[in-house]
This record gives sequence, C-alpha cells and structure tokens, in this order.
Amino acid sequence: MSENFKLVSVDASAGRTELHDQLGLTGCEVSVNTLPPAAAVPFVHMHKQNEELYGVLAGRGEIWIDGEVVPLKAGDWFRVSPAGKRAIRAAQDEAMTFICVQTKAGSLEGFTMTDGVMCEEKAPWL
Amino acid sequence: MSENFKLVSVDASAGRTELHDQLGLTGCEVSVNTLPPAAAVPFVHMHKQNEELYGVLAGRGEIWIDGEVVPLKAGDWFRVSPAGKRAIRAAQDEAMTFICVQTKAGSLEGFTMTDGVMCEEKAPWL
Repeated sequence: MSENFKLVSVDASAGRTELHDQLGLTGCEVSVNTLPPAAAVPFVHMHKQNEELYGVLAGRGEIWIDGEVVPLKAGDWFRVSPAGKRAIRAAQDEAMTFICVQTKAGSLEGFTMTDGVMCEEKAPWL
Repeated sequence: MSENFKLVSVDASAGRTELHDQLGLTGCEVSVNTLPPAAAVPFVHMHKQNEELYGVLAGRGEIWIDGEVVPLKAGDWFRVSPAGKRAIRAAQDEAMTFICVQTKAGSLEGFTMTDGVMCEEKAPWL
C-alpha cells in the first residue's frame, strides 16, 4: 500500500475516537464522538491557536458559546474560533454524534483549485 | 451571536457543499459530498501542499491511490498525503456520502491537551 495513504475504520457510536496518531495526520486532529442522551462534555474550553470545525452527523444537542445556547441537529456544521468559550451536550432524549476538526487558525494557504494538480494517470474506471 | 461562531446546515445528499467561504474557515477547507451510484470524480489529482482527510459517512465506494484500488464503506477515515495520486468513485449499486478535509501538510502544532485551555465559565447545564 502507498505510504501516501492510511485508513482506519471507526465505530462512531464508541464514545470518542481520535484520528491524529492513528492516521499520521500533520494538518489537523479529528475526533469522532458520540454523547449519549443527556451527556455533556463536562467543562467549558477555548484554544490557544486552534480553530475548530464541528459537524453533527446524527442526533441533536446544544452548544453554549460565549454565553449563548444554540440548538444543534444532524447536518449542522460550525466554526468556533480559538477564543470562543464553548461547551457541548447531547439532547436530553437523544444521543448526538459529531466530529471535531482542529486546525491551526490562519494556516490554510491555497486550496482546491489553487492547490490541486490534475494528473495524467487514469483510474481503471476513468 | 458571538463572532467566534458561525453555523450552516448542509444537506449531505446535495452533490457537493464547500464550507470554507460559508463558515470563514482559516485552517481548512471541507467539502461534504454525495456521489450517486456508479458516479466518479472524473479525474486523478494530487496536491501541492495540502494533506487530505476523508471520512465516509454513508454508503460504499472505492479509491484508486497510487495504482491500487481500496474499497470504502461508511465509517472509514483515511489520510492522503499531498503527493498521493487519487480518484474516488461510488459503488456501482450504492451512493457514497463523504467529507474531505484539506489542510496544509505539517501545519498543526499543538492540539487537544496542549492547545486547549479550560475556562472558569459554566454552561447552564454544568
């Protein structure tokens, strides 16, 4: 297998799985999380230099962010800047499965059209 | 609403949604994608400096990576380094929904315990 590729299979229902070390990531840390009904991350936190992107994959919950409560549901994606003070919980009657992507704020330079390069190789189906 | 927070709701079945501009992301670009059954991204590509992390949220498919074909299914998460030549398609008989996170390779410094800071504030439920 190419050294450019590494894969793991994650059971999203299994509490919390952190991918950085398992995949040898160098640009982000990603966690896959499920909070059971009525469960909460038991603290408010912020970050020194990392931006967080959350994606809600299933269920419902809430985030407290800088003093306001925002309801969350499957399909919601949101950015929290390093200075944002945040706490997350699942709904009282429903679990919430979500991912959290940590990256260094301001680190992205080009992307997609400016960073991608078309190759002449063809996959078998192309 | 805090300037540290921005949220969008994404219909993952709606082809391709790019989050960078919608959320004001500064550390990554993320796309949420669904390929219908038998559909393929129509080219092989690599990157100049961005690492990609993919997560398969639903369905099945395949990736061609540096000359090898790897089957993909819901729950699979994988890193592709910038130099990896890659092409993705859905299964012949099933759609595949996946996310792709682009970050600058080598950009992550501290994370989680080294970058996170506990706060004294309390959410209403803490």
